[in-house]
Amino acid sequence: MSNPTAAMIVIGDEILSGRTRDSNMHHLAGQLTSVGIDLKEVRVIGDEHDTIVSAVQALSKMYDSVFTSGGIGPTHDDITADCIAAAFNKHIDVRDDARAILATHYAKSGTQLNEARLRMARIPDDATLIDNPVSAAPGFKLENVHVMAGVPSVFEAMVASVLPTLTGGAPLISSTVRIDRGEGDIAGPLGQVAKDHPALSIGSYPFQKDGKYGAHIVIRGVDPVEINEAVQKIEAAFQ
Amino acid sequence: MSNPTAAMIVIGDEILSGRTRDSNMHHLAGQLTSVGIDLKEVRVIGDEHDTIVSAVQALSKMYDSVFTSGGIGPTHDDITADCIAAAFNKHIDVRDDARAILATHYAKSGTQLNEARLRMARIPDDATLIDNPVSAAPGFKLENVHVMAGVPSVFEAMVASVLPTLTGGAPLISSTVRIDRGEGDIAGPLGQVAKDHPALSIGSYPFQKDGKYGAHIVIRGVDPVEINEAVQKIEAAFQ
Repeated sequence: MSNPTAAMIVIGDEILSGRTRDSNMHHLAGQLTSVGIDLKEVRVIGDEHDTIVSAVQALSKMYDSVFTSGGIGPTHDDITADCIAAAFNKHIDVRDDARAILATHYAKSGTQLNEARLRMARIPDDATLIDNPVSAAPGFKLENVHVMAGVPSVFEAMVASVLPTLTGGAPLISSTVRIDRGEGDIAGPLGQVAKDHPALSIGSYPFQKDGKYGAHIVIRGVDPVEINEAVQKIEAAFQ
Repeated sequence: MSNPTAAMIVIGDEILSGRTRDSNMHHLAGQLTSVGIDLKEVRVIGDEHDTIVSAVQALSKMYDSVFTSGGIGPTHDDITADCIAAAFNKHIDVRDDARAILATHYAKSGTQLNEARLRMARIPDDATLIDNPVSAAPGFKLENVHVMAGVPSVFEAMVASVLPTLTGGAPLISSTVRIDRGEGDIAGPLGQVAKDHPALSIGSYPFQKDGKYGAHIVIRGVDPVEINEAVQKIEAAFQ
């Protein structure tokens, strides 16, 4: 049985313009792999209504789960929540449960829950809230889409809130073999091992260090015995 | 007149599994912005034939240029060149011009141009080669798709080879204002400035440092006079 699949949508002009370097993709990828969910595709798109709506509609149909990052803050360019509602044809407005969370949070620091901050309580009907232990303003899950913040510390906290609720598969195990030869020498024997073990995913990641060529061969799969077999064949081929 | 548009396809299981952190997206984003080409979308996908073919076909129709990264080395999982050929219905085989480049390169180091290395000379008919000053094996351009290596040093060298051949638009200029207040206080006045200047893209990027909340407000556009006007309005609002 194959593992559950997932896609991610990273939302933000600042990443496409090169101003900000995204780190949420790498974090989510590692977390999903650790629980046996296969991240199959990531799309990075700008803060544009129609683009976000169609990406959400397309990916939520193609994969078991979708995760978004970015665009749920208080400013005018934070339009993700409204786009998700539109994608699933749901009504959206300030919701009492989310407003209560914000009210409690801002009361503690004596900060005014003004109109802008209230935008962060806009949650589509039928969505369930995602806990944000860092800065209170919640994410939410609607259908199979998990809507989370772009700020890395908040994103990571929300992923931690969501992860235990997901049904994972067989976690991928991996083994890495370092071969101190050029990829061109490695490719032939490696291709044969890959052919003999179609259940494994075998990747070659070349490096060049101090003028020497080499590659890390990564063998991934769910069966540790078969992985070990492949590792031994690869080591034997390059002794 | 609006700027030329672009999309990027990052190809590689290792990025989706979280093993490798992609850096090519951030590099390309900055380079394209500097010459006035708007990067509108990035897709990260795995080493799967059908997935690559459909992403290439979809994005090459939607945007003026497409850039791919990854999957053009000598090993069995390097299938990008064949997928690009399939996407445009072109014949692909080892091509004499690419073979000559590899032969010259490997002759210098006394390395054998074996079958695996020859795979890197597989170039679709009608494609033009992209120079690789780092490790010789060329990238190529077919239709509006630029096919480049995944190894960051090689990718960056290829981007440098390609950039002067692209027709750019008006480079985006940006100005950043730092406001030492929470985004919830900034959002109201900022939204008004954004409304008054629809030609500008105004983004708010919150930070939290030493327990203090603040945000960098980034104003982007092509007209320095209008950008300056917006900057002054924002600064005046938060004095």
